[in-house]
Amino acid sequence: MPLAATLPGPNLPVRLQEFPKPDLEPGAILLDTLYSEVCGTDVHLQDGRLAGVPYPIIPGHVSVGRVAARNGVVHDVEGHPIQIGDTVTFLDVHETCNHCWYCLVAHQTTRCPARKVYGITYSARDGLLGGWSQQVYLKPGVKIIRLPDQVSPLQVMAGGCALPTSLHALDRAQIRLGDTVAVQGAGPVGLTCAALAKLSGAGLVLIIDSRENRLKMAREIGIDIAVPLDPDDPDNVVRQVEGNNHGRGADVTIEATGAPRAVPDGMRMTRDGGRYVIVGHYTDGGVVALNPHTDINRKHLEVRGSWGSDFSHFHRMIAVLARFTLPSGLPWDHLVSATYGLHQMDEALASVRRGDVVKAIVDPWLRET
Amino acid sequence: MPLAATLPGPNLPVRLQEFPKPDLEPGAILLDTLYSEVCGTDVHLQDGRLAGVPYPIIPGHVSVGRVAARNGVVHDVEGHPIQIGDTVTFLDVHETCNHCWYCLVAHQTTRCPARKVYGITYSARDGLLGGWSQQVYLKPGVKIIRLPDQVSPLQVMAGGCALPTSLHALDRAQIRLGDTVAVQGAGPVGLTCAALAKLSGAGLVLIIDSRENRLKMAREIGIDIAVPLDPDDPDNVVRQVEGNNHGRGADVTIEATGAPRAVPDGMRMTRDGGRYVIVGHYTDGGVVALNPHTDINRKHLEVRGSWGSDFSHFHRMIAVLARFTLPSGLPWDHLVSATYGLHQMDEALASVRRGDVVKAIVDPWLRET
Amino acid sequence: MPLAATLPGPNLPVRLQEFPKPDLEPGAILLDTLYSEVCGTDVHLQDGRLAGVPYPIIPGHVSVGRVAARNGVVHDVEGHPIQIGDTVTFLDVHETCNHCWYCLVAHQTTRCPARKVYGITYSARDGLLGGWSQQVYLKPGVKIIRLPDQVSPLQVMAGGCALPTSLHALDRAQIRLGDTVAVQGAGPVGLTCAALAKLSGAGLVLIIDSRENRLKMAREIGIDIAVPLDPDDPDNVVRQVEGNNHGRGADVTIEATGAPRAVPDGMRMTRDGGRYVIVGHYTDGGVVALNPHTDINRKHLEVRGSWGSDFSHFHRMIAVLARFTLPSGLPWDHLVSATYGLHQMDEALASVRRGDVVKAIVDPWLRET
Amino acid sequence: MPLAATLPGPNLPVRLQEFPKPDLEPGAILLDTLYSEVCGTDVHLQDGRLAGVPYPIIPGHVSVGRVAARNGVVHDVEGHPIQIGDTVTFLDVHETCNHCWYCLVAHQTTRCPARKVYGITYSARDGLLGGWSQQVYLKPGVKIIRLPDQVSPLQVMAGGCALPTSLHALDRAQIRLGDTVAVQGAGPVGLTCAALAKLSGAGLVLIIDSRENRLKMAREIGIDIAVPLDPDDPDNVVRQVEGNNHGRGADVTIEATGAPRAVPDGMRMTRDGGRYVIVGHYTDGGVVALNPHTDINRKHLEVRGSWGSDFSHFHRMIAVLARFTLPSGLPWDHLVSATYGLHQMDEALASVRRGDVVKAIVDPWLRET
Repeated sequence: MPLAATLPGPNLPVRLQEFPKPDLEPGAILLDTLYSEVCGTDVHLQDGRLAGVPYPIIPGHVSVGRVAARNGVVHDVEGHPIQIGDTVTFLDVHETCNHCWYCLVAHQTTRCPARKVYGITYSARDGLLGGWSQQVYLKPGVKIIRLPDQVSPLQVMAGGCALPTSLHALDRAQIRLGDTVAVQGAGPVGLTCAALAKLSGAGLVLIIDSRENRLKMAREIGIDIAVPLDPDDPDNVVRQVEGNNHGRGADVTIEATGAPRAVPDGMRMTRDGGRYVIVGHYTDGGVVALNPHTDINRKHLEVRGSWGSDFSHFHRMIAVLARFTLPSGLPWDHLVSATYGLHQMDEALASVRRGDVVKAIVDPWLRET
Repeated sequence: MPLAATLPGPNLPVRLQEFPKPDLEPGAILLDTLYSEVCGTDVHLQDGRLAGVPYPIIPGHVSVGRVAARNGVVHDVEGHPIQIGDTVTFLDVHETCNHCWYCLVAHQTTRCPARKVYGITYSARDGLLGGWSQQVYLKPGVKIIRLPDQVSPLQVMAGGCALPTSLHALDRAQIRLGDTVAVQGAGPVGLTCAALAKLSGAGLVLIIDSRENRLKMAREIGIDIAVPLDPDDPDNVVRQVEGNNHGRGADVTIEATGAPRAVPDGMRMTRDGGRYVIVGHYTDGGVVALNPHTDINRKHLEVRGSWGSDFSHFHRMIAVLARFTLPSGLPWDHLVSATYGLHQMDEALASVRRGDVVKAIVDPWLRET
Repeated sequence: MPLAATLPGPNLPVRLQEFPKPDLEPGAILLDTLYSEVCGTDVHLQDGRLAGVPYPIIPGHVSVGRVAARNGVVHDVEGHPIQIGDTVTFLDVHETCNHCWYCLVAHQTTRCPARKVYGITYSARDGLLGGWSQQVYLKPGVKIIRLPDQVSPLQVMAGGCALPTSLHALDRAQIRLGDTVAVQGAGPVGLTCAALAKLSGAGLVLIIDSRENRLKMAREIGIDIAVPLDPDDPDNVVRQVEGNNHGRGADVTIEATGAPRAVPDGMRMTRDGGRYVIVGHYTDGGVVALNPHTDINRKHLEVRGSWGSDFSHFHRMIAVLARFTLPSGLPWDHLVSATYGLHQMDEALASVRRGDVVKAIVDPWLRET
Repeated sequence: MPLAATLPGPNLPVRLQEFPKPDLEPGAILLDTLYSEVCGTDVHLQDGRLAGVPYPIIPGHVSVGRVAARNGVVHDVEGHPIQIGDTVTFLDVHETCNHCWYCLVAHQTTRCPARKVYGITYSARDGLLGGWSQQVYLKPGVKIIRLPDQVSPLQVMAGGCALPTSLHALDRAQIRLGDTVAVQGAGPVGLTCAALAKLSGAGLVLIIDSRENRLKMAREIGIDIAVPLDPDDPDNVVRQVEGNNHGRGADVTIEATGAPRAVPDGMRMTRDGGRYVIVGHYTDGGVVALNPHTDINRKHLEVRGSWGSDFSHFHRMIAVLARFTLPSGLPWDHLVSATYGLHQMDEALASVRRGDVVKAIVDPWLRET
């Protein structure tokens, strides 16, 4: 009987619960979970900030596991059959409809209204459909990737949901060799965007945050310049970025804070004709005042929202992890600050809520000692 | 002795003045002016809203004239020599430095800090360097285009500075065949953008304004839907645009109002994954509140400022006028509401300031009767 | 018992055959066919030039019909339920796998190896899965579009499979307002590309063909310049295109001939830094000699193959037909040269093979008289 | 009296010659040359393969020197005044007209017919206008860049003319994080493109050449896979590239060989929907047979010629050298195989002609011993 941690409803503590071992319908797979993620979205889920969530739910949208059972032959995207014992990860967005205007005409499945997401849109009543569980049930059609030899389960967790999100943002950022890139915010998405900017050939990468523990981590993973933000003097940051690119500002700025007031600052620290990617506003943080003349029109600025990610980003995540490992790549594991057991999930959520940790993960087999 | 109208300084009435006939340096050309323009920028110049203007100035940046004299052989961009008697127009941006970072590295001459512009950045003390004059002195290096047979001087004025500006905005808009396009504002730039959207193959073009005389003109030049804006209920317009594209909003929206409050409305009336081009904020109209989550990030919106225009747009302006004339094209002349003489320029500026006219032009040979 | 025309195998005449009225599985629809298409692909099918075709087949991939029966509620892409009596068309590419690398990572369903196509990849043994039949069976999941009031069944046939193919090619061509566009070949795809180039705001459209009947039709639908090709002197055409754009050649050239020797000519008639779209090589016509230095590298040319189309192009096809009808649009119906009954399909194929007709269609209820 | 090496005419040996010390016109600068380049173009110049060369010429288009004298104040692109003693490099393309259609409308100065290039288009009779000389005369308007502290003169030479050319090719290649990139040819441009692909975040970089000394160097600078080309079995290389990307071929292939027969091979080793950049065909190597159906159209391939470079690439070259130095970057110096004195230039040209060296440079102060 697999154990799982559920969120029973908004503003309630996590509950531990045993679930019956599921029967597998044809094409389904059962995973023994190795790790799952505790991310900002899970905090929002506990706080009841997302609409339409079918509580109780088993959270955990990005997870790694080992194939324990399968019903029939299931192939990965390259056409290889999945085997018992394979170490795999899977796209949390289980299903887009492939029938609506956004799927078929706009080719923007991230805006499909019928998206189903492991760990968010499924109720615990429907089964083991989230990663905070010793086992996860992969429905037929779930998109599965086997980890190549170079990629460890822990690295996948270090990438987490931040990595495909950031790959999408980087596509939107279109960095060119030698560009100066500024990243606002040194949480998981900001750190990952800064790291990817560096791997994309940026000439200089600056990252901005008000918390020293995050700036420290940025320096540790090799970001060029970590700029402390004084909330009372945001212009100081703008001047620092400009000063690092001949007074012109960054060629590309990426917003990864979720704070509306970062937006006009970010526009100002970007050079005329540059690009500003907004990827941090996953939830509604309210409004901010900006000046369309000075901040956008006269600057000939390009502002790009970047929403979610699709399988292509998830697939590239593994390629990027396989390629950019140490010694010449990135110390991905370093991004994982803490590992929790299922019995510690309230504590994990509290840490993420406070920003004490950069990335928290759950190992559902970890025992209370 | 050519007569010209000058702006002596901020908030002062126009002054009529005779100038000595200029000597031509090698490579220079003297034009007998046929028409020049009275546009919103000229109102800003009289109102002292632009910085660094070397009053007194002769306004008038887009003009058409006949070549009266030349010193030496001057070639147009196609390599043909300019002849006495040719009917020509010229790029008001006389000079970009071709030496700075924006000219040489970013290839964005519209952001060159050393730009010199006829009718704006030259003092009347430096000569006949604006179009509100019976003659205009074209310095060596001014980029000149001869009007082809299909294009009349009046059509060039109907295009005016709005047409290259709008061509630049349309490049940024990347309209595809069948797109639904919304344009905010039915002044010269808005009407021209709407017309160009139609000529670019848009499936449906809506234009929005609060003034009935402008909506009427929009209908007369063939824009599909002219939507009256009730400033007290801007959401009504958003709903109307959405309703015309299956509830999704416009594929592309173009802002041509200069009113900051139009910006969040424009974002809301654009579909998820669409594009929003801001071209109307030529001057500083102040700030506006917007929501980065709902208006940009979750929408996966692309927002593009479009600043000024360069010779490529000016050159294409003539190609577009040559191509899209009646009967199958556009009634461009229709956009010219009124023609003024040099003695009527305060009246002309007042009309433009009030928005009574769509486009006002000046014929500097028109006599007081 | 619906009547259908089948191709029994390579190089065999068409056979007429009655089929049993099908039972509808849940989600399926039965159409009374109004029209289907006879296109170059059908000639290739009769000639046995396509690999892996499960003869006998019922050809006819683009069709229009009236809904005769349905099993359950089926929605179109906008979410509206399909009703008995609706006039509809459907995407011939019934199915892409949404599971392979091309579907999920490259977002290029046109390269999905598992594509299933009505009229091509289904055997007549599997049912009424082609348009040369009085009834067509639409499997669950077939993507259906209802014709809006402005679009007649005949217009859809005039667009045919050439229109979505050409919309895809036009996306790749990225025409800008005022561009000079040359189209090689005045068959259905070439004529449609030329028409779409015009609707996209091209400043001048030239079309090139060796057959006078096709050039005549090009002129009739309003293409600017129809250039006869003398196969013994292809340089003459290159010079004519250059002469129409200041000696520089076309900004964009679109190949729609299927003849390999057109390719180097097309590169030469395109200006330095221009774009060359190859859309006409649907089947293997062999090799051609070209010079990478003069034809591509020194020209800084961009060459883009354009393969097939997906639902987004099919969806836009209807929007384009709805918009660009007469009087201000295009005389689409004019492209339909001849309508055949099921008993005349060998004759129809022979006409298309000889190039006597631009577009041939079949009305499966037309009786022998 | 500065000494220089000249090419007196086609197929003639290099000649040593003393030149009078030049007077400086206002805005001019005199450099003491530190290094100049010996590249494939210089071989073509000796072999008389370029048209319109005003022999005798002083070759050497990319050079580094120290400012020995100046007449008046000259600024670099960032607006800083150039000082006596500064170590600088300069764009060999001294002048584009800023008046023709390619300069002003297409924004493609690389196709400006009036380009003037140091070391190629100037006669030795016009002065010290090439780098194979102890001093170089920089005319007013020559675009000058001062080397930052991190960049040594030798590194600039290691980049040479191959680096801006390759940066242009990389812009055209639009590599994304994780892409598989194949480069054909391991000469200076091929090696530089492969190195830049790696720095741009490619997931895997393969380089192909028939010469083992070049493949060895590729391995030494860190290219992932160096593939020997057997000219009798080019399909073997295609299979190897495919085998390294799940049988699909490279996402991006870059041609840097100058051999026409490499072009169809390169198309075949690129995946469907991929990009193929042709940058190696600087001179006319004749024709090659390719199949428009299988090689371009059905593959939905994008083929992009990349011609020359402009100041923006030259400017970025320095930023890239400053950034990507050892230990984490590239051993650029390693690309320089040999340094010659002015008295050894025939020998230098012979080595480059034979392909014995990857990059040869000249130190014009090196004495015969």
